[in-house]
Amino acid sequence: MATNDWLSAPTRSPDLKARQAAASRQLQLTKPPGSLGRLEEAAISLAAMQGRECPAICAPHVVVFAGDHGIVEEGVSAFPAEVTGQMILNFVSGGAAISVLAREQGAVLSVVDAGSRADELPEAVVIDKKARGTANFRNQPAMSDEELAHDLAAGQRAVRRAAEEGADLLIFGEMGIGNTSSAAAVASVLTGRSVSEICGPGTGLTEDGVAHKARVLSDALKHHGLTDGGDPLDILMRVGGHEIAALTGAFVTAAQAGIPVLVDGFICSAAALTACRVNPGVANWLLFAHASAEPGHRILLDEMNASPFLDLGMRLGEGSGAAAALPLLRLACALHAGMATFESAGVSEKASEEDGA
Amino acid sequence: MATNDWLSAPTRSPDLKARQAAASRQLQLTKPPGSLGRLEEAAISLAAMQGRECPAICAPHVVVFAGDHGIVEEGVSAFPAEVTGQMILNFVSGGAAISVLAREQGAVLSVVDAGSRADELPEAVVIDKKARGTANFRNQPAMSDEELAHDLAAGQRAVRRAAEEGADLLIFGEMGIGNTSSAAAVASVLTGRSVSEICGPGTGLTEDGVAHKARVLSDALKHHGLTDGGDPLDILMRVGGHEIAALTGAFVTAAQAGIPVLVDGFICSAAALTACRVNPGVANWLLFAHASAEPGHRILLDEMNASPFLDLGMRLGEGSGAAAALPLLRLACALHAGMATFESAGVSEKASEEDGA
Repeated sequence: MATNDWLSAPTRSPDLKARQAAASRQLQLTKPPGSLGRLEEAAISLAAMQGRECPAICAPHVVVFAGDHGIVEEGVSAFPAEVTGQMILNFVSGGAAISVLAREQGAVLSVVDAGSRADELPEAVVIDKKARGTANFRNQPAMSDEELAHDLAAGQRAVRRAAEEGADLLIFGEMGIGNTSSAAAVASVLTGRSVSEICGPGTGLTEDGVAHKARVLSDALKHHGLTDGGDPLDILMRVGGHEIAALTGAFVTAAQAGIPVLVDGFICSAAALTACRVNPGVANWLLFAHASAEPGHRILLDEMNASPFLDLGMRLGEGSGAAAALPLLRLACALHAGMATFESAGVSEKASEEDGA
Repeated sequence: MATNDWLSAPTRSPDLKARQAAASRQLQLTKPPGSLGRLEEAAISLAAMQGRECPAICAPHVVVFAGDHGIVEEGVSAFPAEVTGQMILNFVSGGAAISVLAREQGAVLSVVDAGSRADELPEAVVIDKKARGTANFRNQPAMSDEELAHDLAAGQRAVRRAAEEGADLLIFGEMGIGNTSSAAAVASVLTGRSVSEICGPGTGLTEDGVAHKARVLSDALKHHGLTDGGDPLDILMRVGGHEIAALTGAFVTAAQAGIPVLVDGFICSAAALTACRVNPGVANWLLFAHASAEPGHRILLDEMNASPFLDLGMRLGEGSGAAAALPLLRLACALHAGMATFESAGVSEKASEEDGA
């Protein structure tokens, strides 16, 4: 039998001394205290995660996990299922949004097929799958225990490869026609909110399509006895997806390895919340990139007390929202390390509060 | 007598064919239509402004205008007035936030002293001033007609220099201890909103300090008979600042030259609104970078129907908020030009609406 005990191994602790040093440094830079807003917070958080007063992002790695979903039989997606495999090809041939975003920023992009139905993929794709798509979870578990264990470990393997290559920041992405359905089911059970609150158009359902999707998911949760919550791994097995399970394993592994993760949108956040429920220390390693247009994302962000950097109406997945926020983190680091101090630049500081305005 | 007639000369018109071509292109890229949100809009807007289906930002120029403010005598700023000159030095020696942001992104940074009290500035600073600071506008006009004409033309000269160097996107910034007071006065008259709604802490006033600032500004607007609106240039002369007037001239000139401007925060937006009132065509050339933490900024943005890209709690000025948004525009251009199309990548398109979800 496969064991998932590794998920509970301790995560690294952020370095509180480095955080304090970074916070002090911010107060000395030639600007009114706090005037760089979220960019100051980002630099300070990264300092704690990277264990140094001046953090830097020199080797960002993007890992996109792909999987197919049996639930598409229920007519819950605007795109046909074969698009998953077509997009895997597009990722590695450089034409997808995440391909462009990674290339423009010198980020390594790897693509892991964690459970798609695609065959004969090019060598550039890491094939790490035990199943070709999930079962239709409307009336049966999406996957077996063994498949779940495989997927979680596939996420671990992907992060370990990135860590060996020196990744100092991770972005996870996903591709899988039908995966907003799976993520919505997982999110509903984990947050206790109804599927109709969480369900959205995904890649572009009409209003009727969204209502149909919500009914399918509601029926599925009843079938699996998940309407009153459940164990995170059991939820994944019953209504998850191979890429969502791999993401969950990847989030846990990143936190155990002490590598910060810039979290993308709805599906990645569903996996991130699952990972936090499995191992609460994961939360210390997450930076939230953006608020997706998918309505359930805000619910997941609130559940994790997250205030993302961007709110640009993006809803593509692939890690694209996180990749769009990467420049902000890099500029935050550059400002933190590169600005002059009041002393070095000979700039007068703010009058003390007692002196009045 | 100086003439400001040039301000009314026609602005360029964005290229609607290029806009249409760009909008069509977006629909062919391998992503659900609209799924890149604001990044799609940004690429389409830039296409219209640059007159080509695939826009690019190869030569961004940042111009920071500096000026001093007599109104600081009334105790309306948390920092002493000498900081204006100290920061001008910091800009050109590379230690200020905008210096770092420009350097990191390969943007040209020029600094124009449009009316500071500083002496003996280094050669790297463009000295283009007729006055050393404004008069205290509590009881007298901030500047003379001649000074206003000079400042407006200083903005024109700065943009013409950038245009000659091939600038394809402009970011304007400002530095001037006391200039949130001047900008709040201008914004109040232009929008018809009370100074107490618009006034904020600037570089860091306490709550009592903000209340005092609002009283000073309210008294000043009464003194100048500006409580029921006024002519934009007369407002600038009475309660404006040299850098705010230069910014106004710069916005108008950019629109006349057909160069898009990525608009920074509160003070730049006050100048942008002034420019739009002087010459409504200016509005076609503005992209709004961020929502500042300064409360009056939201009022100015609403007045210009602007939805900025970022909302990061920044309130530094210098052009820093615009420079932080520059990577988003560049990524928007890269995605627009670099993504594969459904046809080229062999990816299936969304089923038509009639086919259902």
